[in-house]
Amino acid sequence: MAAAVLTISSKNYSSWSLRGWLLCKMAGIDFTEKAMPIDDPSTRAELLLLSPSVLVPRLEDGEAKVWDTLAIAEYLAEIRPDSGILPGDRVARAHCRSVSGEMHSGFANLRSALPMNLKARYDRYPIFAGALPDIERVTAIWRECLALYGGPFLFGKTPCMADAMYAPVCARFETYAVPLDETCRGYCRTVLAWEPMAEWTAAARTEPEELEELEVEF
Amino acid sequence: MAAAVLTISSKNYSSWSLRGWLLCKMAGIDFTEKAMPIDDPSTRAELLLLSPSVLVPRLEDGEAKVWDTLAIAEYLAEIRPDSGILPGDRVARAHCRSVSGEMHSGFANLRSALPMNLKARYDRYPIFAGALPDIERVTAIWRECLALYGGPFLFGKTPCMADAMYAPVCARFETYAVPLDETCRGYCRTVLAWEPMAEWTAAARTEPEELEELEVEF
Repeated sequence: MAAAVLTISSKNYSSWSLRGWLLCKMAGIDFTEKAMPIDDPSTRAELLLLSPSVLVPRLEDGEAKVWDTLAIAEYLAEIRPDSGILPGDRVARAHCRSVSGEMHSGFANLRSALPMNLKARYDRYPIFAGALPDIERVTAIWRECLALYGGPFLFGKTPCMADAMYAPVCARFETYAVPLDETCRGYCRTVLAWEPMAEWTAAARTEPEELEELEVEF
Repeated sequence: MAAAVLTISSKNYSSWSLRGWLLCKMAGIDFTEKAMPIDDPSTRAELLLLSPSVLVPRLEDGEAKVWDTLAIAEYLAEIRPDSGILPGDRVARAHCRSVSGEMHSGFANLRSALPMNLKARYDRYPIFAGALPDIERVTAIWRECLALYGGPFLFGKTPCMADAMYAPVCARFETYAVPLDETCRGYCRTVLAWEPMAEWTAAARTEPEELEELEVEF
Protein backbone atom coordinates (compact mmCIF):
# COMPACT_ATOMS: atom_id res chain seq x y z
CA MET A 1 0.00 0.00 0.00
CA ALA A 2 1.22 3.51 -0.78
CA ALA A 3 2.49 5.58 2.12
CA ALA A 4 -0.01 7.79 3.91
CA VAL A 5 0.05 11.53 3.19
CA LEU A 6 -0.08 14.14 5.94
CA THR A 7 -0.94 17.68 4.85
CA ILE A 8 0.64 20.36 7.00
CA SER A 9 1.44 24.06 6.72
CA SER A 10 4.23 26.07 8.35
CA LYS A 11 6.52 24.13 10.67
CA ASN A 12 7.37 27.33 12.50
CA TYR A 13 3.87 28.65 13.09
CA SER A 14 1.33 25.86 12.71
CA SER A 15 0.70 24.23 16.06
CA TRP A 16 -2.05 22.02 14.64
CA SER A 17 0.29 20.72 11.93
CA LEU A 18 2.84 19.91 14.63
CA ARG A 19 0.29 17.93 16.64
CA GLY A 20 -0.79 15.85 13.65
CA TRP A 21 2.81 15.19 12.67
CA LEU A 22 3.86 14.12 16.18
CA LEU A 23 0.95 11.68 16.28
CA CYS A 24 2.03 10.12 12.97
CA LYS A 25 5.59 9.78 14.28
CA MET A 26 4.29 8.27 17.51
CA ALA A 27 2.25 5.76 15.53
CA GLY A 28 5.32 4.86 13.50
CA ILE A 29 3.42 4.89 10.21
CA ASP A 30 5.10 5.37 6.87
CA PHE A 31 3.98 8.81 5.66
CA THR A 32 4.98 11.64 3.40
CA GLU A 33 4.40 15.32 4.10
CA LYS A 34 2.45 17.57 1.78
CA ALA A 35 2.90 21.28 2.47
CA MET A 36 -0.03 23.65 1.97
CA PRO A 37 1.05 26.84 0.24
CA ILE A 38 1.39 29.66 2.74
CA ASP A 39 -0.79 31.99 0.67
CA ASP A 40 -3.70 29.57 0.57
CA PRO A 41 -6.71 31.13 2.35
CA SER A 42 -7.16 28.02 4.47
CA THR A 43 -3.55 28.09 5.61
CA ARG A 44 -3.80 31.75 6.48
CA ALA A 45 -7.02 31.18 8.39
CA GLU A 46 -5.42 28.39 10.36
CA LEU A 47 -2.36 30.47 11.24
CA LEU A 48 -4.19 33.72 11.94
CA LEU A 49 -7.23 32.34 13.71
CA LEU A 50 -5.12 29.70 15.38
CA SER A 51 -7.73 27.09 14.76
CA PRO A 52 -7.46 23.85 12.83
CA SER A 53 -9.01 23.73 9.37
CA VAL A 54 -10.40 21.04 7.14
CA LEU A 55 -7.13 21.03 5.21
CA VAL A 56 -4.48 21.16 7.94
CA PRO A 57 -3.64 18.77 9.46
CA ARG A 58 -5.17 16.15 7.21
CA LEU A 59 -4.19 12.52 6.95
CA GLU A 60 -4.98 10.46 3.87
CA ASP A 61 -4.32 6.79 4.35
CA GLY A 62 -5.77 4.58 1.65
CA GLU A 63 -9.49 5.24 1.68
CA ALA A 64 -9.44 7.01 5.02
CA LYS A 65 -9.44 10.81 4.96
CA VAL A 66 -9.09 12.24 8.45
CA TRP A 67 -8.87 15.98 9.05
CA ASP A 68 -9.19 16.74 12.68
CA THR A 69 -6.32 16.34 15.13
CA LEU A 70 -8.23 14.22 17.64
CA ALA A 71 -9.78 12.18 14.84
CA ILE A 72 -6.27 11.57 13.46
CA ALA A 73 -5.14 10.47 16.93
CA GLU A 74 -8.04 8.04 17.31
CA TYR A 75 -7.55 6.69 13.80
CA LEU A 76 -3.84 6.09 14.39
CA ALA A 77 -4.54 4.49 17.78
CA GLU A 78 -6.88 2.08 16.00
CA ILE A 79 -4.45 1.05 13.27
CA ARG A 80 -1.45 1.04 15.66
CA PRO A 81 -2.89 -0.14 18.98
CA ASP A 82 0.60 -0.72 20.44
CA SER A 83 1.86 2.80 19.72
CA GLY A 84 0.94 4.14 23.14
CA ILE A 85 -1.12 6.98 21.64
CA LEU A 86 -3.82 6.03 24.15
CA PRO A 87 -3.03 4.73 27.67
CA GLY A 88 -3.79 1.05 28.20
CA ASP A 89 -5.93 1.57 31.30
CA ARG A 90 -9.55 2.58 30.68
CA VAL A 91 -9.73 5.20 33.44
CA ALA A 92 -6.39 6.73 32.42
CA ARG A 93 -7.54 6.65 28.79
CA ALA A 94 -10.67 8.63 29.69
CA HIS A 95 -8.47 11.11 31.58
CA CYS A 96 -6.11 11.39 28.62
CA ARG A 97 -8.98 12.07 26.24
CA SER A 98 -10.45 14.64 28.65
CA VAL A 99 -7.29 16.75 28.87
CA SER A 100 -6.70 16.33 25.11
CA GLY A 101 -10.24 17.50 24.40
CA GLU A 102 -9.75 20.49 26.70
CA MET A 103 -6.75 21.59 24.62
CA HIS A 104 -8.66 20.92 21.40
CA SER A 105 -11.64 23.14 22.14
CA GLY A 106 -10.27 25.56 24.71
CA PHE A 107 -7.47 27.87 25.77
CA ALA A 108 -8.33 30.42 23.09
CA ASN A 109 -6.68 33.25 25.03
CA LEU A 110 -3.46 31.33 25.45
CA ARG A 111 -3.42 30.45 21.77
CA SER A 112 -3.99 34.00 20.57
CA ALA A 113 -1.77 35.72 23.16
CA LEU A 114 1.19 33.36 22.68
CA PRO A 115 1.15 32.07 19.10
CA MET A 116 3.61 29.31 18.29
CA ASN A 117 6.79 30.69 16.76
CA LEU A 118 9.59 28.18 17.11
CA LYS A 119 12.26 30.50 15.68
CA ALA A 120 11.65 33.26 18.18
CA ARG A 121 12.72 33.82 21.75
CA TYR A 122 11.41 36.69 23.85
CA ASP A 123 12.69 37.19 27.35
CA ARG A 124 10.32 39.91 28.47
CA TYR A 125 7.24 39.32 26.39
CA PRO A 126 4.15 41.07 27.81
CA ILE A 127 1.66 38.27 28.50
CA PHE A 128 -1.97 39.33 28.04
CA ALA A 129 -3.66 39.07 31.45
CA GLY A 130 -6.55 37.17 29.86
CA ALA A 131 -4.17 34.32 29.11
CA LEU A 132 -3.15 33.81 32.73
CA PRO A 133 -6.13 31.64 33.74
CA ASP A 134 -5.36 29.43 30.71
CA ILE A 135 -1.72 29.12 31.78
CA GLU A 136 -2.85 28.25 35.32
CA ARG A 137 -5.25 25.61 34.07
CA VAL A 138 -2.71 24.04 31.69
CA THR A 139 -0.07 23.79 34.39
CA ALA A 140 -2.63 22.37 36.86
CA ILE A 141 -3.44 19.65 34.32
CA TRP A 142 0.24 18.88 33.91
CA ARG A 143 0.94 18.75 37.65
CA GLU A 144 -2.01 16.44 38.24
CA CYS A 145 -1.01 14.03 35.45
CA LEU A 146 2.68 13.99 36.38
CA ALA A 147 1.85 13.28 40.04
CA LEU A 148 -0.72 10.61 39.20
CA TYR A 149 1.17 8.69 36.52
CA GLY A 150 4.76 9.36 37.63
CA GLY A 151 6.07 11.19 34.52
CA PRO A 152 8.20 12.10 32.72
CA PHE A 153 5.38 12.28 30.12
CA LEU A 154 1.83 13.19 31.12
CA PHE A 155 0.58 9.61 31.27
CA GLY A 156 3.77 7.88 32.28
CA LYS A 157 7.01 6.71 30.77
CA THR A 158 6.17 7.16 27.09
CA PRO A 159 4.48 9.95 25.12
CA CYS A 160 0.78 9.71 24.28
CA MET A 161 -1.91 11.76 22.53
CA ALA A 162 -2.03 14.29 25.39
CA ASP A 163 1.69 15.05 25.03
CA ALA A 164 1.20 15.70 21.30
CA MET A 165 -1.70 18.03 22.14
CA TYR A 166 0.33 20.03 24.70
CA ALA A 167 3.70 19.96 22.87
CA PRO A 168 3.06 23.32 21.14
CA VAL A 169 2.24 24.81 24.56
CA CYS A 170 5.64 23.68 25.85
CA ALA A 171 7.21 25.42 22.84
CA ARG A 172 5.24 28.60 23.52
CA PHE A 173 6.22 28.64 27.19
CA GLU A 174 9.85 28.42 26.05
CA THR A 175 9.52 31.06 23.30
CA TYR A 176 7.87 33.59 25.60
CA ALA A 177 9.83 32.63 28.74
CA VAL A 178 6.65 32.02 30.73
CA PRO A 179 7.55 31.56 34.43
CA LEU A 180 6.86 27.98 35.55
CA ASP A 181 7.44 25.88 38.63
CA GLU A 182 10.14 23.20 38.56
CA THR A 183 7.68 20.37 37.78
CA CYS A 184 6.26 22.10 34.71
CA ARG A 185 9.68 23.32 33.58
CA GLY A 186 10.90 19.74 33.74
CA TYR A 187 7.93 18.55 31.69
CA CYS A 188 8.60 21.18 29.02
CA ARG A 189 12.25 20.09 28.87
CA THR A 190 11.16 16.46 28.42
CA VAL A 191 8.82 17.33 25.56
CA LEU A 192 11.24 19.68 23.80
CA ALA A 193 14.00 17.06 23.98
CA TRP A 194 11.70 14.26 22.77
CA GLU A 195 13.20 13.12 19.46
CA PRO A 196 10.37 13.87 17.00
CA MET A 197 9.76 17.26 18.67
CA ALA A 198 13.46 18.13 18.34
CA GLU A 199 13.39 17.03 14.70
CA TRP A 200 10.36 19.22 13.89
CA THR A 201 11.83 22.19 15.77
CA ALA A 202 15.11 21.95 13.84
CA ALA A 203 13.18 21.89 10.54
CA ALA A 204 11.07 24.87 11.66
CA ARG A 205 14.16 26.92 12.42
CA THR A 206 15.49 26.53 8.88
CA GLU A 207 12.11 27.12 7.22
CA PRO A 208 12.26 29.99 4.70
CA GLU A 209 10.63 33.08 6.16
CA GLU A 210 7.67 33.68 3.91
CA LEU A 211 5.46 34.70 6.73
CA GLU A 212 6.82 37.98 7.98
CA GLU A 213 3.62 39.78 7.13
CA LEU A 214 1.74 37.30 9.30
CA GLU A 215 3.90 38.07 12.28
CA VAL A 216 2.82 41.68 12.13
CA GLU A 217 -0.80 40.66 12.29
CA PHE A 218 -0.47 38.42 15.32
CA MET B 1 -22.55 -0.51 40.79
CA ALA B 2 -24.05 2.92 41.47
CA ALA B 3 -25.52 4.79 38.52
CA ALA B 4 -23.24 7.17 36.65
CA VAL B 5 -23.65 10.91 37.26
CA LEU B 6 -23.77 13.44 34.44
CA THR B 7 -23.25 17.07 35.43
CA ILE B 8 -25.05 19.53 33.20
CA SER B 9 -26.20 23.14 33.39
CA SER B 10 -29.17 24.85 31.70
CA LYS B 11 -31.27 22.63 29.45
CA ASN B 12 -32.41 25.69 27.52
CA TYR B 13 -29.04 27.30 26.89
CA SER B 14 -26.25 24.78 27.34
CA SER B 15 -25.48 23.11 24.04
CA TRP B 16 -22.54 21.21 25.52
CA SER B 17 -24.75 19.78 28.27
CA LEU B 18 -27.21 18.66 25.60
CA ARG B 19 -24.49 16.87 23.62
CA GLY B 20 -23.22 14.97 26.67
CA TRP B 21 -26.75 14.02 27.69
CA LEU B 22 -27.68 12.76 24.20
CA LEU B 23 -24.56 10.60 24.19
CA CYS B 24 -25.49 9.04 27.54
CA LYS B 25 -29.00 8.33 26.23
CA MET B 26 -27.56 6.87 23.04
CA ALA B 27 -25.30 4.60 25.10
CA GLY B 28 -28.27 3.48 27.17
CA ILE B 29 -26.38 3.78 30.45
CA ASP B 30 -28.10 4.20 33.78
CA PHE B 31 -27.31 7.75 34.88
CA THR B 32 -28.58 10.55 37.06
CA GLU B 33 -28.34 14.24 36.26
CA LYS B 34 -26.63 16.73 38.51
CA ALA B 35 -27.39 20.37 37.72
CA MET B 36 -24.69 23.00 38.15
CA PRO B 37 -26.04 26.13 39.81
CA ILE B 38 -26.64 28.86 37.24
CA ASP B 39 -24.67 31.42 39.23
CA ASP B 40 -21.55 29.28 39.39
CA PRO B 41 -18.70 31.08 37.56
CA SER B 42 -17.96 27.97 35.53
CA THR B 43 -21.57 27.65 34.41
CA ARG B 44 -21.69 31.29 33.43
CA ALA B 45 -18.43 30.99 31.51
CA GLU B 46 -19.77 28.00 29.63
CA LEU B 47 -23.01 29.76 28.71
CA LEU B 48 -21.48 33.16 27.91
CA LEU B 49 -18.33 32.02 26.16
CA LEU B 50 -20.19 29.15 24.57
CA SER B 51 -17.34 26.79 25.25
CA PRO B 52 -17.32 23.60 27.27
CA SER B 53 -15.76 23.70 30.72
CA VAL B 54 -14.15 21.21 33.02
CA LEU B 55 -17.38 20.97 34.96
CA VAL B 56 -20.03 20.76 32.23
CA PRO B 57 -20.66 18.28 30.78
CA ARG B 58 -18.90 15.88 33.12
CA LEU B 59 -19.54 12.17 33.48
CA GLU B 60 -18.56 10.29 36.60
CA ASP B 61 -18.86 6.56 36.24
CA GLY B 62 -17.21 4.58 39.01
CA GLU B 63 -13.56 5.60 38.95
CA ALA B 64 -13.79 7.25 35.55
CA LYS B 65 -14.15 11.03 35.50
CA VAL B 66 -14.64 12.31 31.98
CA TRP B 67 -15.19 16.00 31.26
CA ASP B 68 -14.94 16.66 27.60
CA THR B 69 -17.77 15.94 25.18
CA LEU B 70 -15.66 13.94 22.71
CA ALA B 71 -13.94 12.13 25.58
CA ILE B 72 -17.37 11.24 26.98
CA ALA B 73 -18.39 9.93 23.54
CA GLU B 74 -15.27 7.77 23.23
CA TYR B 75 -15.64 6.50 26.78
CA LEU B 76 -19.27 5.54 26.21
CA ALA B 77 -18.42 3.90 22.88
CA GLU B 78 -15.86 1.76 24.72
CA ILE B 79 -18.18 0.61 27.48
CA ARG B 80 -21.16 0.26 25.11
CA PRO B 81 -19.62 -0.89 21.82
CA ASP B 82 -23.03 -1.83 20.40
CA SER B 83 -24.62 1.57 21.01
CA GLY B 84 -23.83 2.89 17.54
CA ILE B 85 -22.05 5.96 18.96
CA LEU B 86 -19.28 5.20 16.46
CA PRO B 87 -19.93 3.72 12.99
CA GLY B 88 -18.81 0.11 12.58
CA ASP B 89 -16.75 0.74 9.45
CA ARG B 90 -13.22 2.11 10.03
CA VAL B 91 -13.30 4.65 7.20
CA ALA B 92 -16.77 5.89 8.17
CA ARG B 93 -15.62 6.03 11.80
CA ALA B 94 -12.67 8.28 10.85
CA HIS B 95 -15.11 10.48 8.90
CA CYS B 96 -17.49 10.62 11.86
CA ARG B 97 -14.68 11.63 14.20
CA SER B 98 -13.47 14.26 11.71
CA VAL B 99 -16.82 16.05 11.44
CA SER B 100 -17.37 15.69 15.20
CA GLY B 101 -13.95 17.21 15.86
CA GLU B 102 -14.70 20.06 13.49
CA MET B 103 -17.80 20.93 15.56
CA HIS B 104 -15.84 20.55 18.79
CA SER B 105 -13.07 23.03 17.97
CA GLY B 106 -14.67 25.23 15.34
CA PHE B 107 -17.68 27.22 14.21
CA ALA B 108 -17.06 29.92 16.82
CA ASN B 109 -18.96 32.53 14.81
CA LEU B 110 -21.99 30.29 14.45
CA ARG B 111 -21.94 29.51 18.16
CA SER B 112 -21.69 33.13 19.26
CA ALA B 113 -24.07 34.56 16.62
CA LEU B 114 -26.79 31.97 17.16
CA PRO B 115 -26.65 30.79 20.79
CA MET B 116 -28.83 27.84 21.67
CA ASN B 117 -32.13 28.96 23.16
CA LEU B 118 -34.69 26.20 22.89
CA LYS B 119 -37.54 28.31 24.27
CA ALA B 120 -37.21 31.02 21.67
CA ARG B 121 -38.32 31.37 18.08
CA TYR B 122 -37.27 34.31 15.92
CA ASP B 123 -38.60 34.59 12.41
CA ARG B 124 -36.48 37.49 11.21
CA TYR B 125 -33.34 37.25 13.29
CA PRO B 126 -30.44 39.24 11.81
CA ILE B 127 -27.70 36.66 11.20
CA PHE B 128 -24.21 38.06 11.63
CA ALA B 129 -22.49 37.86 8.22
CA GLY B 130 -19.44 36.28 9.87
CA ALA B 131 -21.56 33.24 10.72
CA LEU B 132 -22.53 32.55 7.10
CA PRO B 133 -19.36 30.62 6.15
CA ASP B 134 -19.92 28.45 9.23
CA ILE B 135 -23.51 27.76 8.18
CA GLU B 136 -22.32 26.90 4.66
CA ARG B 137 -19.68 24.53 5.99
CA VAL B 138 -22.06 22.79 8.43
CA THR B 139 -24.65 22.23 5.72
CA ALA B 140 -21.97 20.99 3.30
CA ILE B 141 -20.91 18.43 5.92
CA TRP B 142 -24.51 17.33 6.36
CA ARG B 143 -25.19 17.02 2.62
CA GLU B 144 -22.03 14.98 2.09
CA CYS B 145 -22.80 12.57 4.95
CA LEU B 146 -26.48 12.17 4.03
CA ALA B 147 -25.56 11.43 0.39
CA LEU B 148 -22.76 9.03 1.30
CA TYR B 149 -24.47 7.03 4.04
CA GLY B 150 -28.09 7.35 2.92
CA GLY B 151 -29.58 9.10 5.98
CA PRO B 152 -31.80 9.86 7.76
CA PHE B 153 -29.02 10.40 10.35
CA LEU B 154 -25.55 11.59 9.31
CA PHE B 155 -23.98 8.15 9.25
CA GLY B 156 -26.99 6.08 8.31
CA LYS B 157 -30.11 4.65 9.85
CA THR B 158 -29.31 5.30 13.52
CA PRO B 159 -27.89 8.29 15.42
CA CYS B 160 -24.18 8.43 16.24
CA MET B 161 -21.70 10.77 17.92
CA ALA B 162 -21.83 13.21 15.00
CA ASP B 163 -25.60 13.62 15.35
CA ALA B 164 -25.17 14.43 19.05
CA MET B 165 -22.51 17.00 18.14
CA TYR B 166 -24.71 18.71 15.54
CA ALA B 167 -28.06 18.40 17.36
CA PRO B 168 -27.73 21.85 19.00
CA VAL B 169 -27.05 23.31 15.54
CA CYS B 170 -30.33 21.83 14.29
CA ALA B 171 -32.05 23.50 17.25
CA ARG B 172 -30.38 26.83 16.46
CA PHE B 173 -31.37 26.68 12.80
CA GLU B 174 -34.96 26.16 13.95
CA THR B 175 -34.86 28.89 16.63
CA TYR B 176 -33.46 31.51 14.25
CA ALA B 177 -35.33 30.28 11.14
CA VAL B 178 -32.11 29.90 9.16
CA PRO B 179 -32.97 29.25 5.48
CA LEU B 180 -31.94 25.71 4.48
CA ASP B 181 -32.30 23.49 1.45
CA GLU B 182 -34.75 20.57 1.59
CA THR B 183 -32.04 18.01 2.47
CA CYS B 184 -30.78 19.94 5.48
CA ARG B 185 -34.30 20.88 6.57
CA GLY B 186 -35.17 17.19 6.52
CA TYR B 187 -32.11 16.34 8.61
CA CYS B 188 -33.04 18.98 11.20
CA ARG B 189 -36.57 17.56 11.38
CA THR B 190 -35.15 14.06 11.93
CA VAL B 191 -32.91 15.22 14.78
CA LEU B 192 -35.54 17.39 16.44
CA ALA B 193 -38.04 14.51 16.36
CA TRP B 194 -35.49 11.98 17.65
CA GLU B 195 -36.88 10.80 21.00
CA PRO B 196 -34.13 11.89 23.42
CA MET B 197 -33.85 15.26 21.65
CA ALA B 198 -37.61 15.79 21.97
CA GLU B 199 -37.43 14.81 25.64
CA TRP B 200 -34.61 17.30 26.37
CA THR B 201 -36.37 20.07 24.41
CA ALA B 202 -39.61 19.58 26.35
CA ALA B 203 -37.69 19.80 29.64
CA ALA B 204 -35.85 22.93 28.45
CA ARG B 205 -39.12 24.65 27.61
CA THR B 206 -40.39 24.24 31.17
CA GLU B 207 -37.10 25.19 32.80
CA PRO B 208 -37.49 28.11 35.25
CA GLU B 209 -36.15 31.30 33.69
CA GLU B 210 -33.25 32.22 35.95
CA LEU B 211 -31.13 33.38 33.10
CA GLU B 212 -32.76 36.52 31.83
CA GLU B 213 -29.73 38.61 32.63
CA LEU B 214 -27.65 36.24 30.53
CA GLU B 215 -29.88 36.72 27.55
CA VAL B 216 -29.10 40.41 27.53
CA GLU B 217 -25.41 39.68 27.39
CA PHE B 218 -25.59 37.28 24.47
